[in-house]
Amino acid sequence: MALIVKKFGGSSVADATKIKKVAQIINNRVNEGNKVVVVVSAQGNTTDELIALAREVNPKPSAREMDMLLATGEQISIALLAMALDAINIPVISLTGPQVGIVTDTEHTKARIKGIETSRIDKELNENKVVIVAGFQGRDDQNEIYTLGRGGSDTTAVALAAALKADICEIYTDVDGIYTCDPRVVPEASKLAEITYDEMLELASLGAKVLHPRAVELAKLYKVPLCVRSSFINKEGTFVVENLEKEIVVTGVAYDLNVAKIGLFDVPDQPGIASKIFNTLAKAKVNVDMIVQSAMRNNLNDIAFTIPRSDLDTALELMKKTGEAMKVSDVVFDDKVAKVSIVGAGMISSPGVAAKMFDVLANEGINLEMISTSEIKVSCIIKEEDAIKATQVLHKAFELDKI
Amino acid sequence: MALIVKKFGGSSVADATKIKKVAQIINNRVNEGNKVVVVVSAQGNTTDELIALAREVNPKPSAREMDMLLATGEQISIALLAMALDAINIPVISLTGPQVGIVTDTEHTKARIKGIETSRIDKELNENKVVIVAGFQGRDDQNEIYTLGRGGSDTTAVALAAALKADICEIYTDVDGIYTCDPRVVPEASKLAEITYDEMLELASLGAKVLHPRAVELAKLYKVPLCVRSSFINKEGTFVVENLEKEIVVTGVAYDLNVAKIGLFDVPDQPGIASKIFNTLAKAKVNVDMIVQSAMRNNLNDIAFTIPRSDLDTALELMKKTGEAMKVSDVVFDDKVAKVSIVGAGMISSPGVAAKMFDVLANEGINLEMISTSEIKVSCIIKEEDAIKATQVLHKAFELDKI
Repeated sequence: MALIVKKFGGSSVADATKIKKVAQIINNRVNEGNKVVVVVSAQGNTTDELIALAREVNPKPSAREMDMLLATGEQISIALLAMALDAINIPVISLTGPQVGIVTDTEHTKARIKGIETSRIDKELNENKVVIVAGFQGRDDQNEIYTLGRGGSDTTAVALAAALKADICEIYTDVDGIYTCDPRVVPEASKLAEITYDEMLELASLGAKVLHPRAVELAKLYKVPLCVRSSFINKEGTFVVENLEKEIVVTGVAYDLNVAKIGLFDVPDQPGIASKIFNTLAKAKVNVDMIVQSAMRNNLNDIAFTIPRSDLDTALELMKKTGEAMKVSDVVFDDKVAKVSIVGAGMISSPGVAAKMFDVLANEGINLEMISTSEIKVSCIIKEEDAIKATQVLHKAFELDKI
Repeated sequence: MALIVKKFGGSSVADATKIKKVAQIINNRVNEGNKVVVVVSAQGNTTDELIALAREVNPKPSAREMDMLLATGEQISIALLAMALDAINIPVISLTGPQVGIVTDTEHTKARIKGIETSRIDKELNENKVVIVAGFQGRDDQNEIYTLGRGGSDTTAVALAAALKADICEIYTDVDGIYTCDPRVVPEASKLAEITYDEMLELASLGAKVLHPRAVELAKLYKVPLCVRSSFINKEGTFVVENLEKEIVVTGVAYDLNVAKIGLFDVPDQPGIASKIFNTLAKAKVNVDMIVQSAMRNNLNDIAFTIPRSDLDTALELMKKTGEAMKVSDVVFDDKVAKVSIVGAGMISSPGVAAKMFDVLANEGINLEMISTSEIKVSCIIKEEDAIKATQVLHKAFELDKI
């Protein structure tokens, strides 16, 4: 008997037929004698529909009321899935994030889980019920409702698996595993049997939308055995593990269009200037990704950095104010850029991987605007219009279709 | 400065345009210097749509999961209305029933409010915020979610007004007040300037859908000044008061089609038999309305009673079992009946009103199957097909078009 946490995304519970199918998948695991906790997202496009409703009454709705609104999406899913399980005589109870005791910080629309009180779930599991938990949401100690932001249901599932010491956390989605690249962009992409937490983390951060980076981070931290598999096809998925049995130099290529670049020209070279710039952004919760500081001329630097494109307005406004105070000569931006990356835990012991990447892109006439590397990935900022082409040629050059 | 509780029904917040209009109504009251608490129902047909979703996955969804599902309807409304107020710079916060601390008993889908903790609302009002409260819902002390059943938002509003000692509770709806009869049935129906709690209670119980009986009951108990008015037209509504300034003998005619009749033949005349029958129904939460016991023959009685038609299946099953145990000769039912009633606080001091009612109906050839009277109303069970006709002729005979 195992304790299994299963997470089903919005497309897996989009309508009654799909909900009944999910109920059957759960039923199979229950019949094998397992205890099952299920995390569900809002149905299909519910979240987008709710956001559209909000914008109709207020073009800039407050984060607090957005959380109040969006939390209903998952509450609908959990009730419907519980009803579907009840219909096939599986003892079941649904719980909202606040009811479970998923306690978050107080950052509306992008809260982080601070802790999970497991007593309520433990009680229900002991009564042999399947427990259906609303993903993406929690509460603070004042009973205020918070959402975790997009992809938050993955995080809920992994955090629950960690808190409950589950034997495995299975993420069901509309793809049947992790691929070397998005198959819509590279049809020859291969499915990986295994991937390391670190690789998955890089791929997730780099725009592969299968798993949310925060979820992978948590899984790595608490060593939660993770598996990504399809809700629609009964096939072995991809296991996310600590170390691969067989090392692969490059396991994936990803691109990300949610990128914008901001440049500050002629920033005075004084101690604390960079800290001031990036603290201002951090306070506004803007995640800065790459940072490049050019060689100094006349005690003046050029500083450029990338941020999520969705944060561009906020960041630009802040930088214009900060730049003015610092007397920089200009603040510029470019929102027509993309990030393309290669990832692989084997890179660390294979020199020349980055050089090969630059070569491949250069041969296609693709210009590199910024470069960033870690032990297991190389990322380049390029023009948005080159993103797909770059991804395809890199996938081919590193022979990812042959894995 | 007054403390006003306003309640808006589902049709008043059905879309963005209507929500903005409601925000303006609230804005006017805030600008007059009042503190405002607003109770809202689910938008338009949301509740029915959610019920339809539920039935798709389970023809007999559990009451507990129905509450989980249906509570989302009001949560969507409160968030949207709060956003609309925020858009016109009114400080505002939305709260779910559980967040407010509306504590109910544990009867899922038809819970009753046991108490309201006002500390959270007091705090928000003291910060000069408009407080938007989800109607129709509450929680028990385990944080389980309960709904109050149809019409529950009226009850939430009145209970809040009582708990907060509000100066007035205004019920906004799609009609502009209480009429002597449903204007769709009797186009000459007159709008009443005032009506007593007792009359309103009878009318509400008798099928006039403007106010929920439980809400009127509470208003009467706590002497909450109540007003029914239109969300769409800025017109004086109808005030529900303790005593009328000008007495009217008959203030309204109502009919109700949600009626079914059950008869038990040849029930042995033993002590406790009636108690057994009606306790069985009470335990199943079936509200029995009229009861008639025929003259006894050979120590055997015929007992007939009426119940809401929606409870017929439940009641009939129970009565067949109970009847068998009691060895009654037959259990019969009729679901093609209706109840037509006249109501008026002045009846008590005007003899002959009931007689006039029977006359009017007899002259139209309408047969009376059961009769029930109170100090301020007379109700008759008649054939369903006669209901509209009976209502119209009674309205005319008592000159309600001339009020």
